[in-house]
Amino acid sequence: MGELKNDRFLRALLREPVDMTPVWMMRQAGRYLPEYRATRAKAGDFMSLCKNAELACEVTIQPLERFPLDAAILFSDILTIPDAMGLGLYFSEGEGPCFKNPVQDAAAVEALGVPDPEDELGYVMDAVRTIRRELDGRVPLIGFSGSPWTLATYMVEGGTTKNFAQVKGMMFDRPDLMHALLGKLADSVTSYLNAQIAAGAQAVMIFDTWGGVLSPRDYEEFSLSYMERIIAGLTRENEGRKVPVIMFTKSGGQWLGRMAQSGCDALGVDWTTDLADARVQVKDRVALQGNMDPCILYSSPERIREEVGRVLNSYGHGPGHVFNLGHGIHPNVNPEHAGVMIDAVHELSVPYHK
Amino acid sequence: MGELKNDRFLRALLREPVDMTPVWMMRQAGRYLPEYRATRAKAGDFMSLCKNAELACEVTIQPLERFPLDAAILFSDILTIPDAMGLGLYFSEGEGPCFKNPVQDAAAVEALGVPDPEDELGYVMDAVRTIRRELDGRVPLIGFSGSPWTLATYMVEGGTTKNFAQVKGMMFDRPDLMHALLGKLADSVTSYLNAQIAAGAQAVMIFDTWGGVLSPRDYEEFSLSYMERIIAGLTRENEGRKVPVIMFTKSGGQWLGRMAQSGCDALGVDWTTDLADARVQVKDRVALQGNMDPCILYSSPERIREEVGRVLNSYGHGPGHVFNLGHGIHPNVNPEHAGVMIDAVHELSVPYHK
Repeated sequence: MGELKNDRFLRALLREPVDMTPVWMMRQAGRYLPEYRATRAKAGDFMSLCKNAELACEVTIQPLERFPLDAAILFSDILTIPDAMGLGLYFSEGEGPCFKNPVQDAAAVEALGVPDPEDELGYVMDAVRTIRRELDGRVPLIGFSGSPWTLATYMVEGGTTKNFAQVKGMMFDRPDLMHALLGKLADSVTSYLNAQIAAGAQAVMIFDTWGGVLSPRDYEEFSLSYMERIIAGLTRENEGRKVPVIMFTKSGGQWLGRMAQSGCDALGVDWTTDLADARVQVKDRVALQGNMDPCILYSSPERIREEVGRVLNSYGHGPGHVFNLGHGIHPNVNPEHAGVMIDAVHELSVPYHK
Repeated sequence: MGELKNDRFLRALLREPVDMTPVWMMRQAGRYLPEYRATRAKAGDFMSLCKNAELACEVTIQPLERFPLDAAILFSDILTIPDAMGLGLYFSEGEGPCFKNPVQDAAAVEALGVPDPEDELGYVMDAVRTIRRELDGRVPLIGFSGSPWTLATYMVEGGTTKNFAQVKGMMFDRPDLMHALLGKLADSVTSYLNAQIAAGAQAVMIFDTWGGVLSPRDYEEFSLSYMERIIAGLTRENEGRKVPVIMFTKSGGQWLGRMAQSGCDALGVDWTTDLADARVQVKDRVALQGNMDPCILYSSPERIREEVGRVLNSYGHGPGHVFNLGHGIHPNVNPEHAGVMIDAVHELSVPYHK
């Protein structure tokens, strides 16, 4: 594999000096790109796209052909692990992900095994290897997984939910069962991410999409503690470089100080927290990734540049900032607007690194 | 109207000593009660129930017949103002509230008038007067409104939204237009709440359901500032008593310190913030209302009591706590579980007021 030509992203995650702020976008390989929609149409349904290493590689690379992004992220889904556990993942139009076999009692939790990442999840590792080969050192590749709590919400509810009634019902009434489920998921995520690292992922990110629906105490007990267990079990060096870990709890702005003690290298931050405040909270112990409101990409190029300037300014001087949106890019955004943002990050960030 | 027999709720909002912590529940008059469903069936659709003073009074009183609640809240909808502005509110099954005529350009904003609360919104004032008469001083009656920003989200999007793309699009690209809309809404909410107070509301609450989707800067500019303008314009005394104002921004836990300077008497807090931390943030300047996760009501009575104890303990000793859920009670909760919570609040809170 080619030597890494652009390591700005990896350096920023480790709070090392860079020439300008690196930038990538959550869901950068996605529906806002016509070329993605074309590949997706070729693949058929969403999971067929994830399970085809060549096509997954194609869509992973697409945004890099358009924009000078500083990182690529594996194209996959956060629900590959429960799918590999036999829950029968499918996507229903308008309803999002669903499971044929939700996990709602002790017998169902007991029956779950830890999937072998090179067997049931081998298609993900094939995609990682294919992408690394195709990237040829252009930028680093990010691997990822959903957090145990986030996976559990879908597994217990059987799909997306508004109230989290069933998963919280299990958490409040059967904490023993919830811990058994989360423990199996933590083991699965650990071996899954380690396999991604072995296959070539140069950084990994844990997406805790639903940790923010918990109380502070429940967050620590049912989400954060399992992410800490995962981080403690990860391979942290590969190919002679450190493999940084990014943790992102959406709506977790109140808990950044606590999250910074988890062993991760960087925290994702959504736009409801000012990066200056976030930096104070984490005491510069970890890098920060974020945090422009994705809706700003609906605005004019002038407005987008202005907001990029504001976000850079809120982080301020010094290393440790990876620019990103505070959530995935929306499917109906004009791709040129994403380009305006990315160019503005590089251009406007130079003074902050002098 | 009868003299107020139980003023625990009003006293707690003003941080005055009480014998035990007062408790009420957001959406306490609602679908979890079979008697509510029966009245609703009689009324026909949801807005017909809101617009019939006798039936609105009936459902307002229903939870008080079951439980020793310390406050009643006017049965109404947060979208009465845009409905009175002529936007054509209707409820579609499964989709929630919708507007026939969303507000999406300068001409539509220009055309909006400030509704006369005793004319187009007279049905609300009739309901307030009817409820006060029927309550006969048993407990105080809370009036309420949606916040300008929250009303604007529905008005611009034409209903509920996942991404807030259109309303944020207007906010980012046409801040002048958004401010014109919010200004009209602030004037409308002010006169609407003042009319509720004149009709007999003994406290008022502003529901900012969607302020939490904004960045800190946008929250201050587009939501908080308009709530402050409303509070500054409210009648703060009636029938010889102070009329307390409660402000509730769902997911606003990071901004409680700033919100405490708004002129309100109390802040609603959801369960993602610990009340001990909230109390530190607001420096005991205002009372706090909250904050049990509504999902705990799916648990066993023992677990519910335990959680009530935890919430009371997180607030700690001294005046200024109104117990509530951190969001509306869910429609499929067992009503007996609500009763367990309410009894536990009264019983377990006595030591905190000694």
